Amino acid sequence: MRTDVHRFGLIDPGDVSGLRKAIEGGYVKPKEIVAVIGKTHGNGLVNDYTRGYLMMSLSQLIGGHTGESAQSVCERVPFIFSGGVEGVLSPHYAVFTVSPDKSKADGPALAVGVAFTPPLLPENVGRQRQIDLTAAAVAEAMSKAGIASPADVHFVQVKGPAFTLADIVEASERGLSCATDNAGKLMAFGRAASALGVARALGEIDPARADESLVLKDFDTYSSVASVSAGVEIRTNEVVVIGTSASWTGPLTIGHALMSDPLDIGSVVQLARDLGFTAEPQIPSHQAARIRAAFVKCEAPRDGMVRGKTHTMLNDGDMDQQRHIRGAVGAIVASVLNDTALFVSGGAEHQGPDTGGMIAVIAEKPGAGAELLVS
Amino acid sequence: MRTDVHRFGLIDPGDVSGLRKAIEGGYVKPKEIVAVIGKTHGNGLVNDYTRGYLMMSLSQLIGGHTGESAQSVCERVPFIFSGGVEGVLSPHYAVFTVSPDKSKADGPALAVGVAFTPPLLPENVGRQRQIDLTAAAVAEAMSKAGIASPADVHFVQVKGPAFTLADIVEASERGLSCATDNAGKLMAFGRAASALGVARALGEIDPARADESLVLKDFDTYSSVASVSAGVEIRTNEVVVIGTSASWTGPLTIGHALMSDPLDIGSVVQLARDLGFTAEPQIPSHQAARIRAAFVKCEAPRDGMVRGKTHTMLNDGDMDQQRHIRGAVGAIVASVLNDTALFVSGGAEHQGPDTGGMIAVIAEKPGAGAELLVS
Amino acid sequence: MRTDVHRFGLIDPGDVSGLRKAIEGGYVKPKEIVAVIGKTHGNGLVNDYTRGYLMMSLSQLIGGHTGESAQSVCERVPFIFSGGVEGVLSPHYAVFTVSPDKSKADGPALAVGVAFTPPLLPENVGRQRQIDLTAAAVAEAMSKAGIASPADVHFVQVKGPAFTLADIVEASERGLSCATDNAGKLMAFGRAASALGVARALGEIDPARADESLVLKDFDTYSSVASVSAGVEIRTNEVVVIGTSASWTGPLTIGHALMSDPLDIGSVVQLARDLGFTAEPQIPSHQAARIRAAFVKCEAPRDGMVRGKTHTMLNDGDMDQQRHIRGAVGAIVASVLNDTALFVSGGAEHQGPDTGGMIAVIAEKPGAGAELLVS
Amino acid sequence: MRTDVHRFGLIDPGDVSGLRKAIEGGYVKPKEIVAVIGKTHGNGLVNDYTRGYLMMSLSQLIGGHTGESAQSVCERVPFIFSGGVEGVLSPHYAVFTVSPDKSKADGPALAVGVAFTPPLLPENVGRQRQIDLTAAAVAEAMSKAGIASPADVHFVQVKGPAFTLADIVEASERGLSCATDNAGKLMAFGRAASALGVARALGEIDPARADESLVLKDFDTYSSVASVSAGVEIRTNEVVVIGTSASWTGPLTIGHALMSDPLDIGSVVQLARDLGFTAEPQIPSHQAARIRAAFVKCEAPRDGMVRGKTHTMLNDGDMDQQRHIRGAVGAIVASVLNDTALFVSGGAEHQGPDTGGMIAVIAEKPGAGAELLVS
Repeated sequence: MRTDVHRFGLIDPGDVSGLRKAIEGGYVKPKEIVAVIGKTHGNGLVNDYTRGYLMMSLSQLIGGHTGESAQSVCERVPFIFSGGVEGVLSPHYAVFTVSPDKSKADGPALAVGVAFTPPLLPENVGRQRQIDLTAAAVAEAMSKAGIASPADVHFVQVKGPAFTLADIVEASERGLSCATDNAGKLMAFGRAASALGVARALGEIDPARADESLVLKDFDTYSSVASVSAGVEIRTNEVVVIGTSASWTGPLTIGHALMSDPLDIGSVVQLARDLGFTAEPQIPSHQAARIRAAFVKCEAPRDGMVRGKTHTMLNDGDMDQQRHIRGAVGAIVASVLNDTALFVSGGAEHQGPDTGGMIAVIAEKPGAGAELLVS
Repeated sequence: MRTDVHRFGLIDPGDVSGLRKAIEGGYVKPKEIVAVIGKTHGNGLVNDYTRGYLMMSLSQLIGGHTGESAQSVCERVPFIFSGGVEGVLSPHYAVFTVSPDKSKADGPALAVGVAFTPPLLPENVGRQRQIDLTAAAVAEAMSKAGIASPADVHFVQVKGPAFTLADIVEASERGLSCATDNAGKLMAFGRAASALGVARALGEIDPARADESLVLKDFDTYSSVASVSAGVEIRTNEVVVIGTSASWTGPLTIGHALMSDPLDIGSVVQLARDLGFTAEPQIPSHQAARIRAAFVKCEAPRDGMVRGKTHTMLNDGDMDQQRHIRGAVGAIVASVLNDTALFVSGGAEHQGPDTGGMIAVIAEKPGAGAELLVS
Repeated sequence: MRTDVHRFGLIDPGDVSGLRKAIEGGYVKPKEIVAVIGKTHGNGLVNDYTRGYLMMSLSQLIGGHTGESAQSVCERVPFIFSGGVEGVLSPHYAVFTVSPDKSKADGPALAVGVAFTPPLLPENVGRQRQIDLTAAAVAEAMSKAGIASPADVHFVQVKGPAFTLADIVEASERGLSCATDNAGKLMAFGRAASALGVARALGEIDPARADESLVLKDFDTYSSVASVSAGVEIRTNEVVVIGTSASWTGPLTIGHALMSDPLDIGSVVQLARDLGFTAEPQIPSHQAARIRAAFVKCEAPRDGMVRGKTHTMLNDGDMDQQRHIRGAVGAIVASVLNDTALFVSGGAEHQGPDTGGMIAVIAEKPGAGAELLVS
Repeated sequence: MRTDVHRFGLIDPGDVSGLRKAIEGGYVKPKEIVAVIGKTHGNGLVNDYTRGYLMMSLSQLIGGHTGESAQSVCERVPFIFSGGVEGVLSPHYAVFTVSPDKSKADGPALAVGVAFTPPLLPENVGRQRQIDLTAAAVAEAMSKAGIASPADVHFVQVKGPAFTLADIVEASERGLSCATDNAGKLMAFGRAASALGVARALGEIDPARADESLVLKDFDTYSSVASVSAGVEIRTNEVVVIGTSASWTGPLTIGHALMSDPLDIGSVVQLARDLGFTAEPQIPSHQAARIRAAFVKCEAPRDGMVRGKTHTMLNDGDMDQQRHIRGAVGAIVASVLNDTALFVSGGAEHQGPDTGGMIAVIAEKPGAGAELLVS
C-alpha cells in the first residue's frame, strides 16, 4: 500500500476545481481518498462556516464520482478543516489517498489510518467520555495504518465537534451541564480532552493522567504529536493517524518537532534539516517543492509573556487570540519552509508543551523526485 | 555629542513608569530627549487613540521635569507612535537622547537629527506640498545630525497627520477636495507622499519622480530607508533622521536592509550578521540584549499573492490588512532578533520595494557592553 | 396565479431543515419556488462565504426533490442572500412560490417576477453595462409578474456579483481596469449601478440620469424601491420584482416606505399602520404573526453625522460600517415590527434618499388569517 | 443646592474643547464639577484605552483651572466612561455640577451624590468585598445627595476596575485566585457584584441575597437603577447616585424604567411620556432639546433568543456581544429620544431583569426652558 498527499489551493470554500481537475485527469482516484485536511478562509471560531461549506463541496464532488451520497462520503472520509489563514497563510486542502502498490518497499514510507468515535453530545465535550473514545479511535486508526510502534507516529489530527450556545442551552434543558456555558471555551475543552486521549493511546503519558480532572488544568501533561481542531459541522471525533511504516511504499515521509514557544524557529529549522532540506534558514524554492503538507499547533502564552516581554493577544477584544497566534507562528514557519499553504491551528491545549506547540511536515524523501525535476 | 536609545515596555498608554524611573534614577535627562518612537496597543488605523494617549502621557511627564508645558514638549520632541502589536509583538517606546560627550570618537557612531514641517491640512495630504515639505525637513534633520552623506542615513522615520471623515468633509466645505474621501485611504496617501519626499531628499530617486502624480501609482519609485506612519493626534510631518557619523561618539550603531517580500527572512538574518550577531538563524539571548531598537515596514502584497500562493489579507472584512501583515512580518523578524519589542508598521507604500519593505536595527557595536555583562 | 412567502429560521448555512420539512409536509412544492431571499450569518463583506454556502445547500435540497441539478436550480431560481445579522437580527430565508389558483381575485394581491442579466465581468461592475442590463432585467421581471404600472412595484431586490482582489488583478492583466481596485468598494459600485438601472426601468428618474458618470456621485438620483446586494457566489445580476397586481390572488400584500435617515422610525410606524397593523409603536405579537417578510436598506451617513451629532461608523477600523448600520437600523425596525427575521442590508447607494434608505414589508392583509387564529 | 448637567460632544478622547469653552465662558465652574459620565470611542472591552485617555484629558483641564493636580481631581471627581459608540451613537460626556442656589425649591429637583470605595484588587472583583464596599459607598453617596428615600433614587452609576491578564497572573503569583482567569469575564464579575451592592443599599433585595454565591448565577436578583461599567484606568469603585429631592432646586428631573428585553421600545416611549414628552413614538426635535443625558444598560439574551427567534450575538468571534447589543438597543432608544448622545452600556448582569436592562433619562421639567426657546 502507498499513501499520497495532494495539496490544492482554495479560492473559495465552494471552489473545489483543484481536486476536480485532478480526478478528471486521473491523478486522484476518488475511491482512494481516505482523508482531507485543510485550512479555510473563516475566523476559526464558533461562527466559522467555511469549514462546513468546504466539507459539503468536497463530499459532493467525491460522491459525484464514486456514486456515494455526500453523507456517505462524510462518514467514510474525515474532512478536517481549520479556519483562519491570517497573514501570509494560504487557504488549501491536502487530500490523502491510499492505493495498492506492488513495488517493493524501500525503507519506511508514509502510512495513514483513520477512525471515528461515536457521536459526541455537548455535555461529553471536555469530559472523560471524549478522552476515552478518542484514545480508542487513535488505537484503531494506528492499527489500520499498520504502524508498529507509537514512536513511528508523527502526527495525529483530530477534529471534534463544536457547539453553539443554542446547543449548550439545549443540553441544559435536558438537565445536563456542559463543561462551560461559553461556546468558544467549550471548543478549548474539546481540544484538550481529545489531546489527552491521543497521549494515552500512544503511551505518551501515564494512563492515570488521561483524566478529565486534568483537562485545561495540568498543562505539563501533553501529547507531542496531537493536533486537535473543532467545528460546528461535525458531531464525532474524527481521527487521522500519520506516521511511517516499513510495510508501506512510496516517496513520502514525515517528521515532527516540538516548538517550545512561539519564537522557537530553531526547532523548525532543525526539523527541515532532519528531512534533508538545506534550511539556511529558508528552504530554497526548488527544494520547497518537495513539501507536501505541514501542520502546526500554537497558542498565545497564557502568562501574557513571550520571552520576558508582554504580548497583548489575550487582552484584545477586536481580534481573537487565535487569529493573533496563527498569523505569527504561521509566518515564522512559512519563512523557513518557503511555503504558505500550512495547516496552522491555534488552541494547542495539551498539544505540545505549554506556551509552545508542535509541527509536522510531510515531504518527499530527498532525491525522490520533485526537487530534481526543478533543478 | 552622543546619542543613546532607551527602550521601555508599555503596560498601558497612560503608564509611563519606565521613563519616569529612568528620569528619577538619573539615567535619562529629560532635557536631552530629542525623539520618542514607539508601538502602542491600538489597531493602527484611523480610530486608534492610543498614539495620542501615549503622546499626552509622555509630554506631561517630560514637561513636569523640564518645566516646559506639555504642548511645548510636543513641539520640540517628535513623538512617533504606530498602533498595532499583533501576535508576538510587545508595546514599547524607544527614547532617543543626545548628550554632550567629551570622549574621543572611536569610529562612526549613531547620529540623530529631527525636524518638523509646517502644519498640513487634509487637502495637502498625498499631494506635492507634503512631498516638498517632507524633503525639506529631511534635509534639515540630516544637517542637524551632522550626517555627511546620504549613504550614512539608515532610517528616516516620519509621522504625519491622519484625518477623520469629519476633517475631510470640512475641507470639502471649504471647497477643497482631498486626495480621497476615505479616511483610511488618506492615511496611505500621506505615507506615500512623505516617502517620496524622503527619497528625493536623500537622492535615492530622480527629483522629477518625487511628483504627486506618482503617489500610490508608481511603486517602483521608493526610498530604502523611509518609514512613515500617520495618526490623528498630530498635524505636521515629524521627521527623525538616523544614521552614523564620525563626529558622534557612543557605543551604538545602526544598519538597515530591504525585505523583498514578507517571507524574506534571509535579509533579516544577513542584517543581523552584518551588525556582528551570531544569527543561526536566531540571535542568542545574551547577544540580543545588545539590540536597542528595531524598525520594520511591511505590506500585504497588492497582487494577492505571496510566493505564488494566494493570501487573504486584502479581502478580509473583519481584520484589517495592516493587522495581518504586521503580525506576520513582525513574528518573522522577532524570531531572528529574539526580541519582540519591535516597531513594525504596515503601509509601506514607496517605502522599500513593492510587496516588500525594510528593516533597520540599532544595536550596540559588538563588544561594546551589554553582551559581555551577560556572559 | 398566487404568490406565497414562507420564512424559515437558519441555524447554520448548511441547515435547510426548515424548507425540507415544508417540502416533505407538502406545504411547499419545490417546482413552484421562484426566488429565495435571506439573511445569513457572515459579515456581509467580500469574505462572507455564508451566502454561497446557503445557496449550495438550498439548491441541492430543491434539486434533490425536483430532479434538477443544483446548478440548474441556481439558473432558474434567484438565491439572494445578504450576510450580517448584527444585534437582534435573526438569520432566515424567505421562499417565494408561485402556484396556480382558481379562486377569484379579491382585489390586488402580491405579485412577483424574476429575471437574470447575462454574466458580468469585474470590469462591468459599476459601469453603464451593468445599469443597462439591470434595467432590461427589471422590465422583463415586471412583465413576467404582470404588474401593470411601476406605481404597483414596491420592492425590487437585485443581487449582483462581487469580485475578490484576484479577480480585479486578473481583469487588469487582461488590460481592463475596474471601477476601483478595492474589492469592497467595487461591491459599492455594483450596488449603485444596479440601483440606477432599477430607477430607470421604473421611470423613477430621467433616463439620462441612469448614467455611469453619476454612479456613487449624485446621490440625489435614486430608486425608492431598489435593494441591491452583492456577493462573490454569483456572476449575473439576479432581479426579483415584487408588487401588487389585480390579476393575482392570495392573502398577501406589500407596502414600502422611504426612511429619510437612520432614526426615521416614524416612516416605519406609518408603513405598519398603512398595512393595517396597530403600531403603538410596536405591533403586538398576535398581529406580528401576519408579517411574512421585511426588507430594509440603510447606510451610515456619509457626512459623519446623525441628526447633528457625530457618529463613528466610518472611522472604525475594527468593525465595518455596514455591520454598524445594519445593527442599528435593524433594531429600530425590529422594535416596531416585533420581528427580528428581517432582511437588513447595508450599502444603500442610490437606494432611497442619501443618508437614509427604504423599507418594504410583505404581510397578510388584515383579517386574512394568522392574526385571527391567534386571538 | 442645585445640580446641572452639561453635555459635550467628543471628537477624540484628547479633545476636551467643549468643556474648556464652557469653563472659559463661565458656564461651568470647574470647582463645582462633581462627576463626569461619558461614552468614548473604544470597544468597551479590556483593551479600550479611550476611557483612560479622556480621564487624563479632563482631569488635566479641570486641574489646570482649579489648581489641583490631575490626580487630585481624579480622587475627587468620578470620571465614569464606557467605551463603544456603535451604530448611531455619538461620543460625548456629561458634566454634573453642584452649585449653591438661593432660589426657593419648586418641587423635587435633580439631586446627585458621589462616593468611592477603597481600592480593589483583582482578587476582590466579583467577590463579597466588592458587594459590601459598593453598598457602603451607595449609602454614603445617597446621604450626601440628601435623597430621603430609596424610591427617589433613579440611577446609580458605578465604575469599577478592570484588570488585564498580567494583573490576574500577578494576583495568582501572590497566591490569590481571581473569580476567573479571563480578563473580559472578570469585568462581568465586577459589574455583577457591584450591582448586587447597589441593590442591597437601596433595599431592592433581601440583604441575604447580596451574596457572592449569587454573582452571575441568580439573575432574578437585580437592581432596577444600577448601571455598572469597568475599566482598566481605575482601581476603586466610583459611585454616583442620582435621584430627586425636595431639598434641591433647578429645572432638572430624572426618571427611569426597566426594559424587559432588547425590543422593549414600549417602556422607552412610556418613560418619555412620563417625563412630559410627546413621543409618537419619536420626541420631536424641539422637545428633544430638553434632554440632558440618558443612560441605558442592556445585554445580549443569554438563551440565544430574542422574542423566540435566534440571535447570533453570543457566537460571533469577530465582533463582541457588547458591540452588538449596544448598537441595537442604543438605536432603539435613540429613535425614541431623538438623541444619539446616549450612555449605552453592555453587560447588564443583575442590572435590570435578565435579558433586559434599564434606562434613565435626565431632562428639563416640561416648560422649564429649552423647548420654549425653540418653538
